[in-house]
Amino acid sequence: MDKRQTSWIEAANAADCHFPLQNLPYGIFSTDGQGPRAGVAIGDQIVDLAALDDAGLLPARAKGTFASGTLNAFVALGKPVWSETRQRLTALLAADNAELRDNAALRQRALVPMASATLHLPVAIPGYTDFYSSREHATNVGRMFRDPDNALLPNWLEIPIGYNGRASSVVVSGTALHRPNGQLKLPNEPRPQFGPCRKLDYELEMGFIVGKESRLGEPVGTAQASEHMFGMVLLNDWSARDIQQWEYVPLGPFNSKTFGTSISPWVVTMEALEPFRRDNPAQSPEPLPYLRQQAPNAYDIELEVALRPAGAAQAQRVSRTNFRAMYWTMAQQLAHHTISGCNVRVGDLMGSGTISGTTPDSYGSLLELTRNGAQPLTVGGVQRGFLEDGDEVVMTGWCQGDGYRVGFGEVSGVILPAVKL
Amino acid sequence: MDKRQTSWIEAANAADCHFPLQNLPYGIFSTDGQGPRAGVAIGDQIVDLAALDDAGLLPARAKGTFASGTLNAFVALGKPVWSETRQRLTALLAADNAELRDNAALRQRALVPMASATLHLPVAIPGYTDFYSSREHATNVGRMFRDPDNALLPNWLEIPIGYNGRASSVVVSGTALHRPNGQLKLPNEPRPQFGPCRKLDYELEMGFIVGKESRLGEPVGTAQASEHMFGMVLLNDWSARDIQQWEYVPLGPFNSKTFGTSISPWVVTMEALEPFRRDNPAQSPEPLPYLRQQAPNAYDIELEVALRPAGAAQAQRVSRTNFRAMYWTMAQQLAHHTISGCNVRVGDLMGSGTISGTTPDSYGSLLELTRNGAQPLTVGGVQRGFLEDGDEVVMTGWCQGDGYRVGFGEVSGVILPAVKL
Repeated sequence: MDKRQTSWIEAANAADCHFPLQNLPYGIFSTDGQGPRAGVAIGDQIVDLAALDDAGLLPARAKGTFASGTLNAFVALGKPVWSETRQRLTALLAADNAELRDNAALRQRALVPMASATLHLPVAIPGYTDFYSSREHATNVGRMFRDPDNALLPNWLEIPIGYNGRASSVVVSGTALHRPNGQLKLPNEPRPQFGPCRKLDYELEMGFIVGKESRLGEPVGTAQASEHMFGMVLLNDWSARDIQQWEYVPLGPFNSKTFGTSISPWVVTMEALEPFRRDNPAQSPEPLPYLRQQAPNAYDIELEVALRPAGAAQAQRVSRTNFRAMYWTMAQQLAHHTISGCNVRVGDLMGSGTISGTTPDSYGSLLELTRNGAQPLTVGGVQRGFLEDGDEVVMTGWCQGDGYRVGFGEVSGVILPAVKL
Repeated sequence: MDKRQTSWIEAANAADCHFPLQNLPYGIFSTDGQGPRAGVAIGDQIVDLAALDDAGLLPARAKGTFASGTLNAFVALGKPVWSETRQRLTALLAADNAELRDNAALRQRALVPMASATLHLPVAIPGYTDFYSSREHATNVGRMFRDPDNALLPNWLEIPIGYNGRASSVVVSGTALHRPNGQLKLPNEPRPQFGPCRKLDYELEMGFIVGKESRLGEPVGTAQASEHMFGMVLLNDWSARDIQQWEYVPLGPFNSKTFGTSISPWVVTMEALEPFRRDNPAQSPEPLPYLRQQAPNAYDIELEVALRPAGAAQAQRVSRTNFRAMYWTMAQQLAHHTISGCNVRVGDLMGSGTISGTTPDSYGSLLELTRNGAQPLTVGGVQRGFLEDGDEVVMTGWCQGDGYRVGFGEVSGVILPAVKL
C-alpha cells in the first residue's frame, strides 16, 4: 500500500482530523471583512477558493463560480470539473507542493482559520426529499405504532419510501431552533389542544446533494445515479412526534418536520468517499428491475449522536451506528424518485431517513432509544425521554481510512423554548 | 352603482372576456424576437411591463423588476408596490387615458397580441405545498377507500391538512406530460408490478402565490395572511391513483404526484379578487384559536373542468363547481403552515386541494366522478373511467361581476404515452 499522502497544513495530518488531504469537502463561509464565498476545509483551515481562483490557481473551467454565496454554480459544472478541481486542490495542498505553501502573500489571502469563519448553508436547496431507508428504523417505528408482529408495511420492501420535505427551513449546523407549537391530541381527550410539542426528537440521517439536473419525463437509472450525486452531508431531521402522530394520516408528516432540518456545513464529495464504497446490502425480495444495481452503492460511514442536556458542559454519546446499515441505497433512492418522470435539480437535498442499526445503542432517534419516552435515557446525570429546552444535539460521522479519517465534521443544534403566541 | 370602467383595448370590454380592466393579471411571456419578461393580460393583448418601465410609465419603486424571467423580484417589493402598480396600469389602460392609447410608437412596443406570445411559469417556485381543504372531496375519497360511515378522518375538521409537494415539476399550462410509470399493486397479486399508470387522473385546484416571506420561527396569523398573498392561479394536480394507493402509507403521496403539476400562466392578484370575497364557511367544531379568522376569506370563483378525449376536436365540460365551497380558507392554510415556525418564501405555491361541490356533477376529479373508474363518463361519444393517452384536460375559472368577469384563463395539459424504459 502506498504511504498516505500528507499536506503542508500540519493539522490535516492528524489521524483523527476530519479534514485531511484525502477529504477536501466544499462549503460556504464568511469572515468579518468579507461576505459568503466558497471554501474547502483542510485541517483547521479553510482554503478560500475565490482567492485561489482570482490568483489563477484553479481550473479555467471553474472560473468565477466560487465568489457567490452558494456552491450551486460550481456544482452545476458537472463531474469532470469537480474531478479536475479536486485534483488541482490535492496537488496544491500536498506536502511537497510549493506553489501555495511558499507564497506567503497568497497564503495570507487564501487561508482562513476555521475558528474565525462563519459557515453557511453550502447550497441553495431547490428541493428537499426525505427517504425512509433503514429497515431497522422502519421496523422499530412499526412495532411501536402499528403491528408488532407485522412491523414493516407491505410496500416497504418494494419501494424506497420517501416524501417531499420542506426546503425553506433547512438550516446549517449551529442554527438554534424553537420548539414547535402545534396541535396535540391526547388519547383521552375528544379534541386536540394547542401548545408546544412535548415529544421533540432528532433523527440521525445523512443526505446527498444532487449535482446534475435531470429533465422532466427522463428517469435516472441506478447506473447513471453517480453522475447526479455531488456529495454528502450529515442531516438532523428534527421531529415533533406528538404533532406527527395526529397530523400524518393520510398525507404524511408536515408541521412535525417543517419547523427545521439541520445539515452539516461541509459537503464531502462522492469522490472523497469512493474508497469507502462497499457491497450493497442483501435485498429480498429482489427489487423490481428499475431498482436493481450493479455497482457497490453502500458506504462505510461511522456515525455518532451526542446529547448535551441543558446546562451541562459536555455532550455525551447516546448512539453509534453506521451508514452501511441502510437497506435502500442512494442510487436506488434517486432511481425511484425519478422513475415517475419527476425531475431533480442541482442542489436538491435527498435525506436518507433515520439511520438505525440492529442493537438498541445504535438507534437513530430518541423515539426508538427511549421507546417513545417510556424508558428515558440517563445523560449527563439527568433523564431524557425527549428533548428539553436548552438541549443540544450533536451528530458526527467519518469514514475510517488507514491512519486517517474522511470526516463530515458535525451537525449540531440547540432547542430554544417555544414561541409565545 | 357606478358604471363599469372600460378600456381602450376593445376586446377587454366584452362581457365574457377573462381579462378586462378590472383584472390585470401578471404573467411572464416571450416573443419571437425577445426573451421572457413580465406582462399584464388585457383583452386579447399583453402589456409588456418591461417596455412600459423603460418608457418611465410605471412606478419608480418597481423600476427594473420586469425584465427578468420571473415575477419574483416585483412580487418581493410588497403590497404597497403591487397596489401602486395596479393603480397606474388601471389608469393607463382606461378608455379615457391618452398616454399610451395615443402614443403609436410606444403602443407598438408595449402591446403584444396574446396569440403571438409564449407564456411561461409566472414565478420561480421555491416551495410547493398542497392542501386538502374541500370537505366534499375528503369525504368522497374517505367513502371510497376507508370507512363509508366515517369517511372524514378524525383530524380533518381540526387541521387544514396539507403536505409538501414537488416544486421542480410544476409546469405552465400547455405543457404535455408523460403518463408516469411506477409500481402498481393489483389486489390479487403478491407483489407489485412495474408499468404505466392505469388510473391517471386530474385534480381541479386553485393555488395562491406567496408574496411576502416569513421568518423561521415566526408564525403568520390569519389576520396577517393577506399581506403574504400576491395572487391566485388555477392548478391541476395530476394524480396517478394506482401508484398513490400503493405508496402513500405512511409518508403520503410521492411519485403519484411528482411527475407534474400544471398551473395557469396568469396570476390574478388578490386585489382584483377583492370584490369577490365572501363570508367564510361555517366551521364546526370551532377551530383552535390560531385558526380563527375575522375577515371574510372565502372567494366566489366559478370553476369548470372540460375533457377532450384523444382524437376529439373539442373539449366537453365534465364538472362545474365553485371555490367558495372550500371548508378551510387560504388564510387558515397559511396560518397552519407557519404555526410550527416553518417559513414561507416569495413565489411559494400553495394548492387548495381538489375542489368538489356537493352534487355529483361538481366533483373535481375523475376518481370521484367515475367512482374510481367503476362508472365511466361518456365524453364526446367515448367512455372514460380515467385519462387515456392523448386526452386533454382544460380547467377554467372566473369571478362573475356585473357585466364583466375577472377570469383566470385556463390551465390545460395533454397526456403523452408513458416513457419506454
